Amino acid sequence: MMEMGSKARAAAEALRGASAETRSAAIRVIAGQIRARAASILAANAEDVAKATRLVDRLRLDEARLEAVAAAVEQIAALPDPLGEEMARWTRPNGLDFARVRIPIGVIGMIFESRPNVAADAAAICLRSGNALILRSGADALASCLAIGEAISAGLEEAGLPADCVQIIPTADRDAVGALLGGLGGTVDLIIPRGGKSLVKRVEEEARVPVLGHLEGICHTYVHAAADPAMAREIVVNAKMRRVSVCGATETLLIDRAIAPALLPPIAAALRDSGCELRGDAESRALVPDIGIAEEADWTAEYLAPVLAVRVVGGIEAAMAHIARYGSGHTDAIVTEDKTAAELFVDRVDSAILLWNASTQFADGGEFGFGAEIGIATGRLHARGPVGPEQLTTFKYVVRGNGQIRP
Amino acid sequence: MMEMGSKARAAAEALRGASAETRSAAIRVIAGQIRARAASILAANAEDVAKATRLVDRLRLDEARLEAVAAAVEQIAALPDPLGEEMARWTRPNGLDFARVRIPIGVIGMIFESRPNVAADAAAICLRSGNALILRSGADALASCLAIGEAISAGLEEAGLPADCVQIIPTADRDAVGALLGGLGGTVDLIIPRGGKSLVKRVEEEARVPVLGHLEGICHTYVHAAADPAMAREIVVNAKMRRVSVCGATETLLIDRAIAPALLPPIAAALRDSGCELRGDAESRALVPDIGIAEEADWTAEYLAPVLAVRVVGGIEAAMAHIARYGSGHTDAIVTEDKTAAELFVDRVDSAILLWNASTQFADGGEFGFGAEIGIATGRLHARGPVGPEQLTTFKYVVRGNGQIRP
Repeated sequence: MMEMGSKARAAAEALRGASAETRSAAIRVIAGQIRARAASILAANAEDVAKATRLVDRLRLDEARLEAVAAAVEQIAALPDPLGEEMARWTRPNGLDFARVRIPIGVIGMIFESRPNVAADAAAICLRSGNALILRSGADALASCLAIGEAISAGLEEAGLPADCVQIIPTADRDAVGALLGGLGGTVDLIIPRGGKSLVKRVEEEARVPVLGHLEGICHTYVHAAADPAMAREIVVNAKMRRVSVCGATETLLIDRAIAPALLPPIAAALRDSGCELRGDAESRALVPDIGIAEEADWTAEYLAPVLAVRVVGGIEAAMAHIARYGSGHTDAIVTEDKTAAELFVDRVDSAILLWNASTQFADGGEFGFGAEIGIATGRLHARGPVGPEQLTTFKYVVRGNGQIRP
Repeated sequence: MMEMGSKARAAAEALRGASAETRSAAIRVIAGQIRARAASILAANAEDVAKATRLVDRLRLDEARLEAVAAAVEQIAALPDPLGEEMARWTRPNGLDFARVRIPIGVIGMIFESRPNVAADAAAICLRSGNALILRSGADALASCLAIGEAISAGLEEAGLPADCVQIIPTADRDAVGALLGGLGGTVDLIIPRGGKSLVKRVEEEARVPVLGHLEGICHTYVHAAADPAMAREIVVNAKMRRVSVCGATETLLIDRAIAPALLPPIAAALRDSGCELRGDAESRALVPDIGIAEEADWTAEYLAPVLAVRVVGGIEAAMAHIARYGSGHTDAIVTEDKTAAELFVDRVDSAILLWNASTQFADGGEFGFGAEIGIATGRLHARGPVGPEQLTTFKYVVRGNGQIRP
């Protein structure tokens, strides 16, 4: 493991010297290698699927899905390169010329579970942003990831970059996670964990290097008293049901008391028609009798399933208090025609993404226009929300003078 | 301690609702309170000084220094407010309007040693950026800081903000540091440590929340073969000797073999005339016999004293390799008339601040035009280099729609 760290550090050094075009070419070649090695990747994936007992659909690849993986990688090759950008430039009265220049972070350690496409996406995004990557796959997806890793290595070498730019830890040993969280002797600059609560807890306890956390999305859609009824219904159904397994899926519906009698029954009917189970507080169950009972745990549940918690609230202050207490700071939406209420909500709710009259399912790097993402950061520092290539960079100051000394 | 955390969280909430003008007014009132309470602050400081055995000069306040503290606070009141700024705004083809809006980080825990003015500066910078602050002073400066803290509390209350916006831990107990590093039950968003190596080590081991590290400044000035001789001499003397106790002071001089015979003797003479001791490698000692012997430890020494390590190098690659091996990623400078060499140096050296033909003593938020700073961050994430009010902010995305659902 320590050797992987020093190899990654050397690869990061090589990447800092590689041009945008070299890195783009490498990403394109990797896409080609994924296509060329489809048979062996799918065979490895079949092994993983045969052993899997849960989340099998997340894990499974077929020809169409693998083509989508390769196409997504290719798209990242076409994204604008973030490196070298002058983020700001200014001159001081003493003539010193200051530039803030975008540079790679260095070596990124990523820990993830179940979805083998993450290996390809993360590799491409890290190459786009000039970072070396050490990937630790969960046991479920390990064979698939190692097969994709062979395509990545072959692609890197074909493009003239060190294969060590992307290394996949070849074991599902839990000690490997500990070593990565310890920073591999100071060689890892950033840890990106993507996984369930047990991983999150372990990262919090053991990480000795900065972490860009991707915690759960307990997302709310709040239907305000001044909501347009048809829009509210459409947004709620989409926010919950378009894809229930994404972190931007709404998990709790809050609805104002003033309009709940008129609006909750049709919204509940539309949700039920789309296959969603509802669990509500007493007030919502009084309005729609076939809503089930919500326990306290439902307000903090990330269902990732066709289940929605429902609560009637007394107004915007109560809605914001509910979100402050139970939310995860990921994504929250208000539906209203009242601009003042909307601006209050987006100003006061302290989440990474606030939406007014739109579905929480837009919490996605592609929808933001970032071209790609490796997740949605829920921490407060460095990057919040979708993490694309630009979010995996940092900066340095370059100060150009002509002999200035400080008085 | 846990209660301080929940009070700080409540104060942070109040600060998020406070206008720029309210926060400016509070900072101005604090400056006034520091002046009004000069006698009690200086009496408390005299207690600290009487007990102090080291770094007494850093610790000591007098009327002039206290007035400088108040004036620095007042300047922060006049700085532009960073909050609410739209850092970016764009519209997607589906009509969704995206804004990235600057917001406070939340609750900041700061651990510092010796300099009582840090308490006032940090309080003002945190108010300017809308963050609540918990300060932990070293034992040396505790009485001074508590006295300044009384002025801060009085100022906050007079301005109508909760006194808990800035809390000073009233004990020098080491357990208090542990509690702060543990995050006080999830209430602390960021730790800013400023201190020596033992503190840094402890922070690395114990911190369970993000850290904006202010590590040592092992800064280099590299005199390239194509340097202007007079400029090189002036810059080296200023970079080392203007103030030896700042983190941007040069600690190692690297000089190209090609010009060392001509340039090192006059630079060494100028340094000696200004009171600087030199410790060099064999090659530099062969050129200037009264240079002392540099041990391996001298290349990683942050002297903060009138001592300079000196090494003759074979060229720019050797200079960059020395900096990569021994530097701390803080601030490094090249002196040269050769633009190609300068651009190679600022591109390849991986430090927060790179200077061409200027003194490393410009590593300072005021000199950057940030108005104020609470230190120079040496980590790679979120903020690098001088940390002023803007660097103590984060952002949220506000997405405004008119009923968009995701296909």
